[in-house]
Amino acid sequence: MEHQIADIQYCEHLFNQFYDIGSTESGGVTRLGYTKTEDRMHDMFVKLGSSLNLRSYQDQVGNTYLANSADDGYYLIGSHLDSVIEGGRYDGVAGIIAGLMVMKWAAEDGLKLPIRIGAFRCEESSNFGCCTVGSGLITKEAYKQDIGGLVSKEGETLEEVFKKNGYSLHPAKITGIKQYLELHIEQGKVLEECQTSVGIVTTIAGPRRFNIYLRGMAEHSGATPMSMRYDALCAAAEIILEIERIGKKEAAYQSVATVGVVTNHPNVLNVIPGEVELGVDIRGIEVSSLNRMERDMKEAAKQICKNRGIEYLDEKIGDIPPIGMSDSVELGLERAAKRLGISSRRMISGAGHDAMSFANICETGMVFIPCLKGISHNRAEFTSILSICDGARVIYEYLKGEAV
Amino acid sequence: MEHQIADIQYCEHLFNQFYDIGSTESGGVTRLGYTKTEDRMHDMFVKLGSSLNLRSYQDQVGNTYLANSADDGYYLIGSHLDSVIEGGRYDGVAGIIAGLMVMKWAAEDGLKLPIRIGAFRCEESSNFGCCTVGSGLITKEAYKQDIGGLVSKEGETLEEVFKKNGYSLHPAKITGIKQYLELHIEQGKVLEECQTSVGIVTTIAGPRRFNIYLRGMAEHSGATPMSMRYDALCAAAEIILEIERIGKKEAAYQSVATVGVVTNHPNVLNVIPGEVELGVDIRGIEVSSLNRMERDMKEAAKQICKNRGIEYLDEKIGDIPPIGMSDSVELGLERAAKRLGISSRRMISGAGHDAMSFANICETGMVFIPCLKGISHNRAEFTSILSICDGARVIYEYLKGEAV
Repeated sequence: MEHQIADIQYCEHLFNQFYDIGSTESGGVTRLGYTKTEDRMHDMFVKLGSSLNLRSYQDQVGNTYLANSADDGYYLIGSHLDSVIEGGRYDGVAGIIAGLMVMKWAAEDGLKLPIRIGAFRCEESSNFGCCTVGSGLITKEAYKQDIGGLVSKEGETLEEVFKKNGYSLHPAKITGIKQYLELHIEQGKVLEECQTSVGIVTTIAGPRRFNIYLRGMAEHSGATPMSMRYDALCAAAEIILEIERIGKKEAAYQSVATVGVVTNHPNVLNVIPGEVELGVDIRGIEVSSLNRMERDMKEAAKQICKNRGIEYLDEKIGDIPPIGMSDSVELGLERAAKRLGISSRRMISGAGHDAMSFANICETGMVFIPCLKGISHNRAEFTSILSICDGARVIYEYLKGEAV
Repeated sequence: MEHQIADIQYCEHLFNQFYDIGSTESGGVTRLGYTKTEDRMHDMFVKLGSSLNLRSYQDQVGNTYLANSADDGYYLIGSHLDSVIEGGRYDGVAGIIAGLMVMKWAAEDGLKLPIRIGAFRCEESSNFGCCTVGSGLITKEAYKQDIGGLVSKEGETLEEVFKKNGYSLHPAKITGIKQYLELHIEQGKVLEECQTSVGIVTTIAGPRRFNIYLRGMAEHSGATPMSMRYDALCAAAEIILEIERIGKKEAAYQSVATVGVVTNHPNVLNVIPGEVELGVDIRGIEVSSLNRMERDMKEAAKQICKNRGIEYLDEKIGDIPPIGMSDSVELGLERAAKRLGISSRRMISGAGHDAMSFANICETGMVFIPCLKGISHNRAEFTSILSICDGARVIYEYLKGEAV
C-alpha cells in the first residue's frame, strides 16, 4: 500500500532516535541485554512515548511499557531493544517503532482500545547465553532454573546485575493482557524471494541449546608425534561437521543445527589444544525432529571422543518447545492485510521471539517484514522504512477490527 | 651416574628459587616473554649468579648473562626463563639451572675456561606469536620483518614493550662465542621409552607457521536454512581435520602438523560464525616434507573454502628451516656421557630451541633429558632433579675436555 509522507517521516524519525546508541566502529551496533547501552535504548523509548503523551512504567525486571489507558484487557504490542554483538539496527527495534506508530494512529483516530507497548529486556542470548530473559521472567510460572547464576560478557552474574538495578529474579507475573502482537524482521529470505510484503507467523521454532566440553591433553606441538596426540580441537572439528550434517539431514523438517561458540584452551601456536568447549543451537518446529537431532548429536559426539581418547561431557542449557500462534489472531491479521491490499503469507519463524513468552498466557500473533537478503544478527542487516510502515499498518488495521 | 648429595641439593635449591614466580591456581606457571613475570625470573637468575660471584650483564634486548671471565672465546650455556600459558616449571629453566651447576663445578675445580650462561627472552611464541625473540634478535643479520608490530596477549606491540624497557629492535650482534651448549627437557617420550638418560640432538625440526583467515556470513542461527549458510566455522573444522590428516601422512618423515589457535567471530550461540582465524604450526627435519605439507595444506584449505563459498586468505608468519647441530660437539658430548657412565642416544628435536639461533654463528650442541610421559607445555610437566644433574654433568665433562 501507499503510505503517507507523514507516516514515513515519523517512522524514519523514530529509527534515527535509536540509531547512534551502541554504534560500533564496524558500522553495526552492540546493545547487549541488561547493560547501560540497553538502558539508554529504554530511556529513548520512554522519551518517544512522552512525545505521544503516553504513560510509561517499568516492571520488576526492567521491561518498559507505554500505555494509552489504565484499563485491563489491553492489547500489548511488544518487542525488544537489545542486540547481539556487532548486530543490526532493525532486529527488535522495528517492532517497537511499529508499536509507537500504531499508538500515534490510534490517538489521531480516537480509537477506543486500550493499547500498550512493551520493550522487553535481554531478548538475545548474546550477553548471558539465555534468550527472552525479560519477557520470560514475567510470564512463566517456573522460569529457567539458576538463571541468576548466568554470567555476562563482562563477568557479572545476572543476580549481581539485578541487585544493582533493584530488579527481582522472582517478579510478579504480568496481568490484564487481552492479546500480544509483535512485528519483527523475518531474519530469513522467504518474504524477499516470494516478493511478499508481510508474513503471518504460524509457529516459532523451539531452540534447544547445549554446551559440549572436550578434554584431551595439552602437549608440545613440535615434540608430540601425530600418533600420540589427544587433540581436543580435532575432536571438536569432527563434532562441528557432524552437527552440520545432522542439521542438513533434518532440513526437510525445517530444522537447523549450528555450532556458534568455540572456546579453545590454551589457544597458542605451540601447544596441542587440551580443552575445547562448544556451544550448540538446534531448532525446529517439530519435536520429533528436535529429539532426533539431540540424540544423533550426542551419540556421534560420544563416539568421536571415544575413538580419539577424549573426555566428553554435554549439558543442556536451554530447551524451548516449538510454539504455535493463535489461529484467530493469524486469521485476523491475514484479513487485515488483505483489506489494506498488502500481500501476505503464513510462515514459520526459525528465530525465537518475545512472542514465545506470551503465547502460553494470552492469544498471540506475529507479523514478519522482509529484510535484505535475509541477513540479520549482522551489521549488514537492513529493512525498508516502508516495510515497517506496512507491518505497522497491518497491526493497526487488525486492532481497528478488534475495536468494533 | 650417582650424584653427590650437595649437587642434588644445590639443583633443588635453584629450582625452588624460581618455583613460585608466575604460579597459577591450576598448579602450573604462566611466565610470558617480555612481561613483568619474566623480568622477575631474570632478576632471580642474576641473584643466583651473584651468590656464585659471577658478573652479570644484560644486552640490548633484555637477555641476561652471567660470566666467569671477560675473555672472548667463551662457552655459552643458554636457555630461557619464559613459559607458555599454564605451562610447566622445567621447560627452559632446567637449562639455566644446568648452567649454574656447571659454573659452580668449574669454580670449585678451578677450571681454566671462560664460560657464560645466557638467559634468552621470549623463547616461547605464546605471547607474541613468535618464538626465540631474544636469541633471534642478537644472532640474525636480518631478523623477522616487522617483528615490532607483533601484539602481546595484553594488546601491546613488541615495539611499545621494547621502548618502555629501553630495548632495541636492532641490537648489536653477539660476539666472542666459541661454542653454544644447551640442556633442555625432551618434551617427548623417546628417552623415557628407551630408558636412556640423555639425548644428544642431531637436528632441530624447523617450524613453519601460518595464519589462515576465513570469512563467511554471520547470520541468524535460527532463521537461516542449512542450505543457505556460509558458515566459517564449518569450513575451519574441515581444514583442521585436513591439517591433521596431512600431519599423519608425513609422520613417516618425523613431521607434525597442528592447529593450536582458533578465533571465532562473533562467537555467540545464536549467530552462524562469520569469521574464523586459525593458527597453524607445521614442523619437520626434512625440507621436502615441510614443502609438501605447506602445499597440501594450502591446496586443501582453498578447495574447502571454494566448495563452501568462503573467502580464504593465508599468511606465513614464521619459517625456520631444520637446523643441524655441530658434528664435533655431538661427538664430544657423546664421549663425555660415555666417560661418566651415563646412557645416551642421538635424536632429533621436534621442538624449537634458542640453540637454533646460535647454530649459524658458532658450533652448537644440545643435551636432552627425559620428562615424564613426554608431557610439556602443560602444568603436568615434570623431570627429575637427578636428570638435570645427569645432563649438567655431561656438559661439564665435555667442557673439561675442551679445557685440556
